[in-house]
Order: sequence, then structure tokens, then C-alpha cells
Amino acid sequence: MTNKDARTPASSQDEQPIQGESSQEAGKSIGWHKAYVEGSRPDLRVPVRQVHLTNGQSVTLYDTSGPYTDPLIDTDVRRGLAPLRENWIIARGDTEEYAGRPARPEDDGIKHTSPRGGLRNLDAVFPGRPRQPRRSRDGKAVTQLAYARRGEITPEMEYVAIRENVSPEVVRQEIEAGRAVLPANVNHPEIEPMIIGKRFLVKVNANIGNSAVTSSIEEEVEKMTWATRWGADTVMDLSTGRNIHTTREWVLRNSPVPIGTVPLYQALEKVDGRAEELTWEIYKDTVIEQAEQGVDYMTVHAGVRLPYVPLTANRKTGIVSRGGSIMAAWCLAHHKESFLYENFEELCEILAAYDVTYSLGDGLRPGSIADANDEAQFAELRTLGELNRIAKRFNVQTMIEGPGHVPMHKIKENIDLQQEICDEAPFYTLGPLTTDVAPAYDHITSGIGAAMIAWWGTAMLCYVTPKEHLGLPNRDDVKTGVITYKIAAHAADLAKGHPGAQEWDDALSDARFEFRWEDQFNLALDPDTAREFHDETLPAEPAKTAHFCSMCGPKFCSMKISQDIRREHGGSRAEIEQGMAEKSKEFAAAGNRVYLPIAD
Amino acid sequence: MTNKDARTPASSQDEQPIQGESSQEAGKSIGWHKAYVEGSRPDLRVPVRQVHLTNGQSVTLYDTSGPYTDPLIDTDVRRGLAPLRENWIIARGDTEEYAGRPARPEDDGIKHTSPRGGLRNLDAVFPGRPRQPRRSRDGKAVTQLAYARRGEITPEMEYVAIRENVSPEVVRQEIEAGRAVLPANVNHPEIEPMIIGKRFLVKVNANIGNSAVTSSIEEEVEKMTWATRWGADTVMDLSTGRNIHTTREWVLRNSPVPIGTVPLYQALEKVDGRAEELTWEIYKDTVIEQAEQGVDYMTVHAGVRLPYVPLTANRKTGIVSRGGSIMAAWCLAHHKESFLYENFEELCEILAAYDVTYSLGDGLRPGSIADANDEAQFAELRTLGELNRIAKRFNVQTMIEGPGHVPMHKIKENIDLQQEICDEAPFYTLGPLTTDVAPAYDHITSGIGAAMIAWWGTAMLCYVTPKEHLGLPNRDDVKTGVITYKIAAHAADLAKGHPGAQEWDDALSDARFEFRWEDQFNLALDPDTAREFHDETLPAEPAKTAHFCSMCGPKFCSMKISQDIRREHGGSRAEIEQGMAEKSKEFAAAGNRVYLPIAD
Repeated sequence: MTNKDARTPASSQDEQPIQGESSQEAGKSIGWHKAYVEGSRPDLRVPVRQVHLTNGQSVTLYDTSGPYTDPLIDTDVRRGLAPLRENWIIARGDTEEYAGRPARPEDDGIKHTSPRGGLRNLDAVFPGRPRQPRRSRDGKAVTQLAYARRGEITPEMEYVAIRENVSPEVVRQEIEAGRAVLPANVNHPEIEPMIIGKRFLVKVNANIGNSAVTSSIEEEVEKMTWATRWGADTVMDLSTGRNIHTTREWVLRNSPVPIGTVPLYQALEKVDGRAEELTWEIYKDTVIEQAEQGVDYMTVHAGVRLPYVPLTANRKTGIVSRGGSIMAAWCLAHHKESFLYENFEELCEILAAYDVTYSLGDGLRPGSIADANDEAQFAELRTLGELNRIAKRFNVQTMIEGPGHVPMHKIKENIDLQQEICDEAPFYTLGPLTTDVAPAYDHITSGIGAAMIAWWGTAMLCYVTPKEHLGLPNRDDVKTGVITYKIAAHAADLAKGHPGAQEWDDALSDARFEFRWEDQFNLALDPDTAREFHDETLPAEPAKTAHFCSMCGPKFCSMKISQDIRREHGGSRAEIEQGMAEKSKEFAAAGNRVYLPIAD
Repeated sequence: MTNKDARTPASSQDEQPIQGESSQEAGKSIGWHKAYVEGSRPDLRVPVRQVHLTNGQSVTLYDTSGPYTDPLIDTDVRRGLAPLRENWIIARGDTEEYAGRPARPEDDGIKHTSPRGGLRNLDAVFPGRPRQPRRSRDGKAVTQLAYARRGEITPEMEYVAIRENVSPEVVRQEIEAGRAVLPANVNHPEIEPMIIGKRFLVKVNANIGNSAVTSSIEEEVEKMTWATRWGADTVMDLSTGRNIHTTREWVLRNSPVPIGTVPLYQALEKVDGRAEELTWEIYKDTVIEQAEQGVDYMTVHAGVRLPYVPLTANRKTGIVSRGGSIMAAWCLAHHKESFLYENFEELCEILAAYDVTYSLGDGLRPGSIADANDEAQFAELRTLGELNRIAKRFNVQTMIEGPGHVPMHKIKENIDLQQEICDEAPFYTLGPLTTDVAPAYDHITSGIGAAMIAWWGTAMLCYVTPKEHLGLPNRDDVKTGVITYKIAAHAADLAKGHPGAQEWDDALSDARFEFRWEDQFNLALDPDTAREFHDETLPAEPAKTAHFCSMCGPKFCSMKISQDIRREHGGSRAEIEQGMAEKSKEFAAAGNRVYLPIAD
């Protein structure tokens, strides 16, 4: 994928190119533009990607790219995105601003007071928009689950109903039943609401994040905008190195999609990597820190219980979840039950105050084909089912994470069991990878498993990039991972018979059949690469309107013959059979030509 | 994938680098070498890829790369490969050499006698090894199916039994039952025999071939050796431009794997692309020409019958198979039943004389999600079932081709119906692609479908490259296509519980768990790219022995914690539970460290 990058404009996201515009500059018709579907109120406008076809029709596609692809909106990473949801949140009157927890040097992994002084405030962290954190007023239940249970349809619910092309009431019901989550922290008003549940389009998450080894704040913000541009529905910031707090603030203030984190990673940084020094207090403080910043969902490995740790001892690859192994190390060191499990109810109270959604982590997921569906994995899953029920008591929206490495014949058991044990809470899986033998291609080994498990009911897929097991993904890897997972998700939407899903395939296949090359490119999941690949073999401009392609060449083309057949045999079955001998003569009279002159 | 190429040595295949050697040159231990498993006779030596691990163990993998990866064999494309099977064929005494059909200028698409003279013979076409074609003596049945039916275990059957790690009798039985084919034209003695059937490892085919638009003889030969190097089990030469005959001869003489063709493509060239001018005589002559050269299996679109053509009229994408549309055009032009269907028995006699295997083409396969599993497709499938039974009467080995574009929920019906209608004859599918919306990524859209349909019983998968629908694959595309399909095939082998399949995954996962980076690379489906990706983030040589990777960095590593757990908790369940509190104290006494110094 390296070639493509040379053509992609610079990486700073306020210089992000608008795809429609770049086509315009080339003197061609604009292939698509950002449009909005209006809801019941003027401040409820749902973005879509409107693809304009050369036959005068247009196709509307789901759009995750945020204001960055709207040429009428002037974005600036230093200022952040406009707080779309702010008025909705304020109007509900059930939250209040407060001073908040002061940001501390160690939040950014700085141990000793730097020359520039000790405490910092959020203004310094993110200069763009001074803000105070917000949380529920005493006794108020401010989660989308609470509203749904009270029968309220929030603007957020209406927004996703328009996006998903269903009624707002369906959205409310799915959230009420716990079958869907709408992650939307009251401190992240910038997001364009989206929903995760098996009744809706399958979603894709992209992970970003620096580590001790590599990467910078700017890179992480840019990875987020890059991932959402290609279709990521949510982004997880898994940073573990320096500047975790500041990086997250910049990512949140600029993100049009919900942001997820694993608070345990930052908590571990605060104790300098010594798992046994972790405490409930340090963890809780980190969760509050992140909730105040606006993190929309948090992975919590509360299912890694003390008695399960020995179940992993004879595994081929032990514990491969970083969060899982941290908690296992803590349990081992103290020979105590997990502080996350023990304090889960208090954690629920905190998350409820900000409407942070749980993503109950699968810390004991299998890391190899050999370990799939074993006792450790399913013991943890049963605990996640128990925790899911507790979270619901506190009105906390909850989804459940799933594996991992699983051979194809063991995939269905995972989703079936999860749905049963966890009362149909949304399943959120990493792949699964269907074989261990292809490092450097694990987007593909896992894309196979992801498509299957999504077909069977998984609501969101966590992408895997080609660098999995080998290194940290760069820009190209992020794009490849997102595109691969959008394929898996859409293949699942088709297989589930999601209303409207096939319209996209049909539009593209019509364009293909009718040799509308530009339409085929513009409808593609990745128009740039499709166009580039076509041009490699047939670069000339006339080839874009030619009624053939390089596979068969101009001499003979199966699509052209099919068009002849349709022309001659279109109509009802009876008409077709009756008229066939007749038409055959006409075909002969017309010269029987299957040639296609280039200019035809 | 472009980066990799810069590191790959030059493309002429007699300069093909030996992977083991290149590691040796770098001063490291050889990662793998070509080994042979001896059969019951000295001239029966089955090649394997022996991977040597740093822990002293070794892993044996199936090897398709031919003599090119054996440093002891001096290969030369101008001379061709040694005729491995020649003595076996001669010893059977049931075939004879004969003068053969003279090669004609039009075989290479040359219409008018060139200045250099009219007729040519095979010596001129391929200078390496003068040869006469061979066919069955009168009345002799010389196909592997005929031998299997007589209870004979041929050296070819023993060879594949060793490759597949099953008994020769199992191989014979599967061939006898028509559930497997062993494509091995008596005129292609150079091949290393392989078998295609659901009882065996899932196989992968790679298509090569020039077209009127692009490509040369050398490129095609090199694509063949390149594809087999990465694991292609067979190669189809789908050339349609100039020099079809000569290109095929060079490919055959240098190919260690069975070669398939679509004779209809060349026949159409001989009538200058006018489908209606095709005749049974021209087609038959082309089949004999190719059979004499040694083509091992041929796609024959005899199931595209006149009454089925109108069934495609109201499809979204009509007929997308090139062969299917040629036959449809012929039927339309003449308003007659297909000459392939009408002359099928005579065709069987020809194929039987050379032991050419049928690949009964699915000329009416769906070309879009909308057209999947429709009446046209299944009407043709029923005819293929009928033709399969006729072929068996003539002792011709037969496999059945399948789609195409099929959404996930409609895939299983394809394999189930094919197995029922075609008496369990091997199914050989193109993908299927599970969505139409991702041109430039159709290796992935189809890899998903391929893995699933192979799990459910498809015996061979025809690869799809990233260029599908857009252009002709280059070297990188061929590699990406083959690797993607090897992943799909191996994922299916795992899901089918093929004996020994998981040993490969286990060996790689063990290496991963124990931070044996070099072993992980050498066991990978693509060692070069795995190593390259690792080095992008952590290039230094010590990082290859480091007990961490760039994902978590040196500070905290889940694999390391798991190793601690195993060290402390290995043993029976009872021992584990009993000893746990005890061990916890030791862990604490040892410092509770989850740090990992770089040099550890």
C-alpha cells in the first residue's frame, strides 16, 4: 500500500483533503459530497456521504468522517470540533459542571515536578476550549439507558435512528433491552452519535495509541481522523507511553466518533509499571480523570478473577490480553480477588455519573488456536454475564468483549454463549483470527473470523492491522485495517439482510455492468486505490469510459455479451422463451459481433 | 506490498533465491531447507519444507515450490524441469508416443504466414527438450481414475499419500469414488503429483496469463514459479493474446504443479474473436493441441445450454464468466444447443487418452451479490452433475467449478447442492466474494467466502487478486492473492480438523510465547514480510531476541506474565489450586516484578 501514500496530501488534519473537491480540481464532476439529513429540530443534522452517479442517480452512504470532509466547515485541531450535543445535554438539566479533578504531572507520566512547575490545568493541556467537566446532579440517572428505560427518546436516539434508517422507537427499545449501547459521555459533546447493537449496522473500532517505544501526540490525533475518514465508527486510544493525558485530550476534542480507553493502562503507568502496586484508589482516580475528559467507553477487565488465573497455566500462549495479564499479576502478587471485581458496584456509580459505557474486557481471551474456547475463557465470560447484570442495575450501558484467536468451527459457540450468558448485550470482538500462521496478514486471518461472527450477531468488530504481533501500525496499516474490517462488517450486514445494505452492492454492480468506471470508483470502499489499480493497466483517460477492461481486453467482453442478451431477452419468462428464436436471427443479422471497438 | 519488492532479488526464475540460503548469507542459522521424504522406490522422493527452530526442533511443511528451492538442483528455464514421472508413465506400458498434431502459426495467434516461414514444430517452440506427445494405446484406460477403479496404487497415488500424510489406499479410494482428482497429464511428466478432494488439504489455484492488452512469455513463466513459491498448488494459464501456444509450452516445461487452461479462450483467438464462428472441430483441435502439450486439467463450459441463456436476461450483471458468455453468444447466434454439450462424449474420449482432468466450468456463475444462487446458476449446476456422470463412464477425472459472488448466508447452499448433485465430485470455487463494494480488496472480500466454503467441503480455491475487476495482476498481486488464499485454505484445514494442520499453528504460537522471533518469522506463511514489519518498529538485531515487542514495549509484557504464571502454576488442576497461595508468596518474595529489562 506504500505507493498510495505518495499521492496522499500532508498529514496534518486541518489540511485534510476533501475527496469530492480533489475530483473537482481534476476537472471532472464531483464524485460525492457531504450532505445532511435533517431531524425534528434544526440542530439535529445527520451527515451522509452522497455519491453522485454519471447516470444522474445518487446513492447515500453512512458517513463517519466528521466535519473534516465538509468543505463548508473550517476545522482546526488546536480549536477542536464544535460541541454538537452541548445544548441537548444542558437542556436535559440533569448534569452540572464542577471544578473537577486537577490534572497532575503523573497523568502524563511525568514523575518529578518539571522546571516548568507542578500542577497543570486543562487549559494548558488543550488550549482550544476552556471547559469544566460535567457530571450528573445528585440522584439523577443521566445515561441513555436510563432515558430509554423512562421511555424518553433523546436527540441522540433520533440521530442514530436517522443514521440507521429505523424508527427512534426501535432505537429506544434496543437500548432499553440492553441489546444496544449508545456511547456518549456527557463530557464528549463533539461526537456524532452512533449505536452498537446486533439490530443495527455492524460497527468497526480502530485502535490507536503511542507506546513507550514510539509515536507522538500529533500522530495519534491524525491516526484518529485518518481512521474515521475510512470508516472507523469508534476509536480506542490505547496509549501507554508519555503524555497519555494530553494525547487523549487532543484526540477527544477533535473526534467525531466515540473514544474508548483501557484505564488500567494509564493506572499502570502511574505506578511505574509495577502491577502489584496498583490499588483501587489509583484506578478509580484514573477512571474519574478519563471520564471528566470525555471518554465514551472503557474496557474494564473485572472478569479476570483470582480463581481463573491458574486455569491459564497450561495454555499454549497463556494470557495475551495486556489488561488481563496486569490483573492476573496483581491477583498473584497479593493472592487476593481482583480489586476491579470487588469494587465493581462503586465503579458502576462513577460510570453512570458521566454516561460512560462499559466494555467488559475479555482478559482471558485465547491468544492461539490451541487455546480457543477453553475453560479459562468461558469462566471469565460467565463472570462478565454477572457483571453485566450489575451494571444494568446502575443504568450503565454495557457491551462485552470477545476473542481473539478461534478456528472457524469454534466461532459460533462464542457468540451463542455470549448472547445467552450476557442477556444479548452487544458483543465486541477482536477478529477472531482463524489461524496463527500468517503474521503480517492478520488483518486477513482475522477479517475472515470477524465477518463470520458479525453475521452471527456480533455488534462491533475491533480491527486488526497487518502489524498485529509484529509492531505498531502506521498510517497505511490503519487504513488497511479499517478497510478490511469495513468489508467484514458490510459482508455481515448483507448476510443479516440488513435493510438497505444490498443497495450499495447493487449500485456498484450496476455501474460495473454498464462500464461506468467513475461510478464504480466513487462507490468503492476505497475509491483512490480502485482508480489507481485500474490506471496501472489502462492509464489513458478514454479507458475510463471504455466498454471493456484489461481482463479480457477490447476483443471480447463477457459483460458486453450479457448486455446483448438482456437487450434481446429482457422481459417476462414467457416473452423470453417465445421470442428467442426470432431474436437469434436479429443477432445474426446484426453481424454476430462480439468485438468491441475501443470508442464504442 | 511495494516495499518488499525492492528487497527481492531479480525476477528471472533461474536466479530464484533460495530462502534458506539468503539467511545463511546473512550469517545466521539457516531457517529452513528443502528435504525429501522417501517413498517405496528410489525415484519417489516427496519434497517438504523443513523449518529448523532455534530450540532444536523442526517442523515439516507441505511444499509446492518445486526444484527451484533446492540448492542442489541446477534449474534452467530454457531446459525445463526433469521429467520426474516419465519412467512411471513408460513402465505402465499403456501409452505410446506419436507424431502429434503439427503446431501452426495460428496456435500463437499469428494469422498470416510470417517471413520466417509457416509451420513450426515443438522444437522451435521450446528448445529445451525435443519430445513427441504421448497418448493411450488403443483401448487402454490410462487415467488415475481407471487405475484406482482397477485397485492399482500408482506411484502418483503413493506420492500424494506421503504429501497428505494418509495411506495410499485412502488416496486410491477417494479417486475411485470420484471424490478426489489427481490431475496428471501423461504429457506433463515434470509435475510433483498432488491431489484435490475434500478428504485432503484444501488446495489453491493461481491464475496467470497474458491478454491482448499486456504481458510477455517470460513474465508468465516467472509468475508461475513465483506463485508456486508462495504456495499455489496448481496454476491456470488463461492467456488470450499472442503466443498462447508458446507461452503455455514454456510454462508447462517449467512447472512443478499441474497446469489448467480454458481451451475455449485459444479457440476464440483462432476465429479472431467471433464467437459464432467457433465450431466443434476448431475446439476439438485446440483441446488436442493442449492435451499433447501436457495441460493437466481443462475448464469446459459444457453446462451453458441454450435454454439457460434467457435465464440470465434479467440478472443484475448477466454472464460474467468469459467462457460462459462466449458459449452463450454462440448459442444465441445459431439458436442451437451448445456444441460442447452435444459433443461431450467425444470430448471425454479425448481427455481420457491423455488423462486430462475436467474442470466443468460454471459459465453462469453470479457476478454480483444480487445474482447469487439464482435459477440460471443452479440450472447449470444440475447439468454439470449430469456431465460428471458421463465423464466417469469414460474414466475421466472430474471436478466442478463454483462461484463467484455470494453473500455469506447463501454460501453453504452452494457446496451442499454441488455435493449432492455432483456425487461429491471435488468443488473448485472462485472465492466466493461476499460483497461487491470493495474493488481493489477483492482478495479479502473473496478470502472470507473462500475460507467458509472450504471449511464446508470445497476442495480447491481459485485465488482472487487485489486487481480483480480492475486490471491484470502483477508480481505483487499474485503473491498477495496466493498468501490470502493459503490463509483461507489453512483456516479451513483447521476447521475441518485435518490431521496435523494445527501443528503448524502450535509451533508458531509456541515460538511467539517464548519470544523466539526468528522461529516465528521462519514459520510464517510469508517470512520476509513478517520480518520486515517487525524491523520497521524495532530494527536493531537485539530486538530479535528481546523478550518483548513494540506493542507493549519493554516495560510491561503480557506474555512474560503468562510465563511466570506457567512457571508457578503448571501441573494438574489439583496441584495448581493447592499450591496457589504458597506460590503467591514466592512471587512476592521475588520482587513482584513485571518489568522486563531489554537484555533479559
